[in-house]
Amino acid sequence: MKREFAVIGLGRFGGSICYELSKEGMNVLAIDISEDKVNEFKNVASHAVIADSTDEATLKELGITNFDHVIVAIGDNIQASILTTVILSELGVNKITVKANNDYHAKIVNKIGAHHVVHPERDMGRRIAHSIISNNILDYLELSEDHSIVEVKVSHKMIGKSLVDLDIRANYGCNVVAIRQGNDINVSPRADEVLQEQEVLIVIGSDKDIARFEKELVIEDD
Amino acid sequence: MKREFAVIGLGRFGGSICYELSKEGMNVLAIDISEDKVNEFKNVASHAVIADSTDEATLKELGITNFDHVIVAIGDNIQASILTTVILSELGVNKITVKANNDYHAKIVNKIGAHHVVHPERDMGRRIAHSIISNNILDYLELSEDHSIVEVKVSHKMIGKSLVDLDIRANYGCNVVAIRQGNDINVSPRADEVLQEQEVLIVIGSDKDIARFEKELVIEDD
Ligand SMILES: Nc1ncnc2c1ncn2[C@@H]1O[C@H](COP(=O)(O)OP(=O)(O)OP(=O)(O)O)[C@@H](O)[C@H]1O
Ligand SMILES: Nc1ncnc2c1ncn2[C@@H]1O[C@H](COP(=O)(O)OP(=O)(O)OP(=O)(O)O)[C@@H](O)[C@H]1O
Ligand SMILES: [Ca+2]
Ligand SMILES: [Ca+2]
Ligand SMILES: [Ca+2]
Ligand SMILES: [Ca+2]
Repeated sequence: MKREFAVIGLGRFGGSICYELSKEGMNVLAIDISEDKVNEFKNVASHAVIADSTDEATLKELGITNFDHVIVAIGDNIQASILTTVILSELGVNKITVKANNDYHAKIVNKIGAHHVVHPERDMGRRIAHSIISNNILDYLELSEDHSIVEVKVSHKMIGKSLVDLDIRANYGCNVVAIRQGNDINVSPRADEVLQEQEVLIVIGSDKDIARFEKELVIEDD
Repeated sequence: MKREFAVIGLGRFGGSICYELSKEGMNVLAIDISEDKVNEFKNVASHAVIADSTDEATLKELGITNFDHVIVAIGDNIQASILTTVILSELGVNKITVKANNDYHAKIVNKIGAHHVVHPERDMGRRIAHSIISNNILDYLELSEDHSIVEVKVSHKMIGKSLVDLDIRANYGCNVVAIRQGNDINVSPRADEVLQEQEVLIVIGSDKDIARFEKELVIEDD
């Protein structure tokens, strides 16, 4: 029982969603106003059609209300994004996700019927900002306003020490949930495991605790 | 000892990096060819200047080689992105991160001196695709090619059961590393804790184990 998705707007963001859903075996209808874009996705999505999503009759003809989830990934043309969202909402589409350009855009599409609003560039900008502040912070997942998961390179201060030696939980309040070396991940690290250069710790905790941990154990003057 | 960053291109992605670095107290020079963009960041970044980054003399005048890390966040104009990267590399900038539009763009900037290439829309598209395949998967962090961390809503099959009852580790090979309710996160969940509706589990494991866990315990026919 495959689920049915429609993606409107095949830019970098919508295109990526279309690829990934298709790769996972989902049925995807890919829609774009540009013929070139649609040709690019002919062999990726289950169906790819040239259509202007601000045209209600066209969306009806495509049977858009039969889809479980419609993703609106129109970017620069905010007016087209808003109009498309209104139409989908009025047609009674079950689940509508909209890519927003800014808070103003987000507010409007929320009001007019989007069920979920995403800010891909903003969120990824935040993630990358965090990872570049310290060369040793590789990735970053925000769990809540004040808790995160971070990936940190084993620093010189940690090499040769075990998790018991460092006692990160007692000293900093955060937990090491996994150790990675390249593509090998150990999700049940032993307390006496000795840390090696090139290993990466996956650490969960409050932002405050993680910041203290980073400051004292991770960040190196280079 | 504040670090020095320069962000070239203040679109949604570059703008977000600029905001976040500034919020974290970093020194940021914000550069864009558009006056409107630069005005928008006058009160955000330490400095904001109107400049065409494909002009070598201008970059030199800005003392671009004195920065620890330069981020090139020019999107649609691939040629400007490539030219900017070449100039930064030839000037000997310490660390250059470039936003890429596609694999072809990424390959080129890698060859001509970018130290790090990012694909914000592609990566976020993948994340969101995973979160929308199941309504219960809220977020998703790829740790390696075959290991991830996912956030999953407590499903009906889990409500009222404890972590011991479910024995997720023994049955599915993945670990519950935290439990979230709204903004409250418990990073040391007790084994006998009874799961409630509206709680969210943060689970680490191999993609295969997580998929099995999702299939049997998380995904609900709705
Ligand atoms: N009315 C419309 N109907 C269907 N598709 C549309 C419509 N308007 C724009 N699009 C398509 O939406 C896609 C994404 O739009 P655009 O490239 O302007 O946004 P973007 O935010 O810069 O994209 P991204 O960051 O995802 O690459 C484009 O391929 C464009 O052709
Ligand atoms: N030669 C240049 N020098 C400086 N800034 C430039 C240059 N060319 C483009 N820019 C700026 O780069 C910014 C980002 O470019 P653009 O909006 O085309 O990319 P985008 O990938 O759609 O952006 P995003 O997805 O981050 O919103 C714009 O504000 C633009 O003015
Ligand atoms: Ca654009
Ligand atoms: Ca935070
Ligand atoms: Ca974009
Ligand atoms: Ca994967």
